Amino acid sequence: MSQVKRYGMVIRVKEERIEEYKKLQADVGPDILKMIKGWNIRNYSIYLGELEDGQFYLFSYFEYLGDDFDADLKKMAADPETQKWWDVCMPCLRPIVFKAEGEWWMNMEEVFHCE
Amino acid sequence: MSQVKRYGMVIRVKEERIEEYKKLQADVGPDILKMIKGWNIRNYSIYLGELEDGQFYLFSYFEYLGDDFDADLKKMAADPETQKWWDVCMPCLRPIVFKAEGEWWMNMEEVFHCE
Repeated sequence: MSQVKRYGMVIRVKEERIEEYKKLQADVGPDILKMIKGWNIRNYSIYLGELEDGQFYLFSYFEYLGDDFDADLKKMAADPETQKWWDVCMPCLRPIVFKAEGEWWMNMEEVFHCE
Repeated sequence: MSQVKRYGMVIRVKEERIEEYKKLQADVGPDILKMIKGWNIRNYSIYLGELEDGQFYLFSYFEYLGDDFDADLKKMAADPETQKWWDVCMPCLRPIVFKAEGEWWMNMEEVFHCE
């Protein structure tokens, strides 16, 4: 069995689309939840907060159970159902310029973990 | 048994003290880990990232197993061992002005969760 890998990521949400984004996330249906499980992702949470630059940020935390996250990410990006979901969410979001090539949410560095 | 409650929090870390903070977190000893468990906290992770305002942020995620987080937080704040640990970490950090009264890390709003 693979070891669980944890991820922390960040992105901005457009202020004028916060309510729309919150509604989307609150109403996520069983298809999307099944899709997330199929990505080998579990215990996935997203948090919203305003920072001092007056921008609104989303922080996400999830656990990945697969063996190759980059390969799974490529599979997600090629999957029509995933694309449909991303096409709905994406217009609400504004990626951070420091994100790596090919990223959407910016991957952060884990500096502490305790079970 | 209590239901698990999840928390996502954010704070800034002073750029000139990032290495010091990372070292502190990497070298957390068994006493601190035991203390964290004693606070009814588990699966606690901290992530570091630079945002577009040129500031460095820490995002933390943890699960709380107790019944009354505010009461436990007061207990933590009154505990000399906890205070000693906070006194070491605190000078590396810079709280966000929007945090609530009595908070150190700013509590964020959960907008999505999937098991």
